[in-house]
Amino acid sequence: MINGKLTAGIIGGMGPLATADLFTKIVRMTEAQRDQDHVHLLIDSNIDIPDRTAAILSGGEDPLPYLRASAEQLTAQGADILLMPCNTAHYFWKPLSDSVRVPVLHKPRLTAEECRKRGLKAVGLLATTGTIQSGVYSAAFEGSGVELVFPDEAASAALMHIIYDEVKAGKEPHPEAMHPYLSAMREQGAEAFLLACTELPIAFAGDDAFPYIDPTELLAAEVIRRCGGKLK
Amino acid sequence: MINGKLTAGIIGGMGPLATADLFTKIVRMTEAQRDQDHVHLLIDSNIDIPDRTAAILSGGEDPLPYLRASAEQLTAQGADILLMPCNTAHYFWKPLSDSVRVPVLHKPRLTAEECRKRGLKAVGLLATTGTIQSGVYSAAFEGSGVELVFPDEAASAALMHIIYDEVKAGKEPHPEAMHPYLSAMREQGAEAFLLACTELPIAFAGDDAFPYIDPTELLAAEVIRRCGGKLK
Repeated sequence: MINGKLTAGIIGGMGPLATADLFTKIVRMTEAQRDQDHVHLLIDSNIDIPDRTAAILSGGEDPLPYLRASAEQLTAQGADILLMPCNTAHYFWKPLSDSVRVPVLHKPRLTAEECRKRGLKAVGLLATTGTIQSGVYSAAFEGSGVELVFPDEAASAALMHIIYDEVKAGKEPHPEAMHPYLSAMREQGAEAFLLACTELPIAFAGDDAFPYIDPTELLAAEVIRRCGGKLK
Repeated sequence: MINGKLTAGIIGGMGPLATADLFTKIVRMTEAQRDQDHVHLLIDSNIDIPDRTAAILSGGEDPLPYLRASAEQLTAQGADILLMPCNTAHYFWKPLSDSVRVPVLHKPRLTAEECRKRGLKAVGLLATTGTIQSGVYSAAFEGSGVELVFPDEAASAALMHIIYDEVKAGKEPHPEAMHPYLSAMREQGAEAFLLACTELPIAFAGDDAFPYIDPTELLAAEVIRRCGGKLK
């Protein structure tokens, strides 16, 4: 803490582009005339953290010790609060949070809270099958009064194509391919759509055919607020 | 160092958007199929570092102790090499470099070396008057065999307008306003133009009327090479 302002530590690298996207959003969403008006961030873009989905669904190496080591280093360096851009990593939030002495923000819960505040009754969850199966969003929305509408098999396949074959492969994304599926989810009650995979805000940038909610943006706003910055 | 790959530490926050731009460039310029193919980065986006130009030109608070503290934290956390996106901060490179046990990359020197390799005889220096007056680029190009062509007063004013009233103010930049000045500098021998202020690659993105060289891109490429990543 310097001049009463908190420093935020980002447990990143999952993946690196999502971490850079969160960093850029925090900077761009801060009302600042000079460097000193921004918030102090410490970022560990640690690309050696094992795959979260593989650990949860198919017995891959446990990422928790890596998350804990990163958290420890960031707090030793001065981080007053911690956060993770990766949605799926929140599967490990409780044991991680229990092992550090500073608060760890919770992206899916912030998202559920924002949906509740906006008075939404149901939202569509756009995420990888791994994130959906990890249950991090289902658990966060439990008791929020906001229902989750899940993509069906065909919608999931189209979504995975955008994430893996387009954004992650560095190709031009075609979010309009999702429109028929989103219409179907809207018929099931979804009033807005959560871009709950860090690749999706990149794919859906500029597409305003449906109302989207970007959890990375909500996380960025919370960091700015908590660290004494001014939101634009 | 993990698995023989080095970790890079970024002394950032000068300014935060330039730091995010460098981070994004390192990620986007790395050939990677998965997170683990990227390079491990530790970033200190420390917005409390005093203004470099004010310290150099008008006796403002000395940023050196802050740069040293950031360097020390990053190396304690595991950084094997250090770097700074801020051009003007290189005025303090020698005393900073002398005080740490790991190499500190030098952005203006990397730029001079690249211009020499490309066989350029003269390049135009596009930078703030503060950066030009700090002499960091003049010193780096000394003995390189590549001459620097400086903007005249009117060109400097136009450049400062783009940097401060457009990019830093979050407005649409008009790089074409520089074209007549760049033509004049070309008549003085400039074969290419250095975007030697971290706001300029943002302003000149998409403008290909003249050959530009982005020192932040050269720094990103050097980090990837040094840390065992694969350049795209």
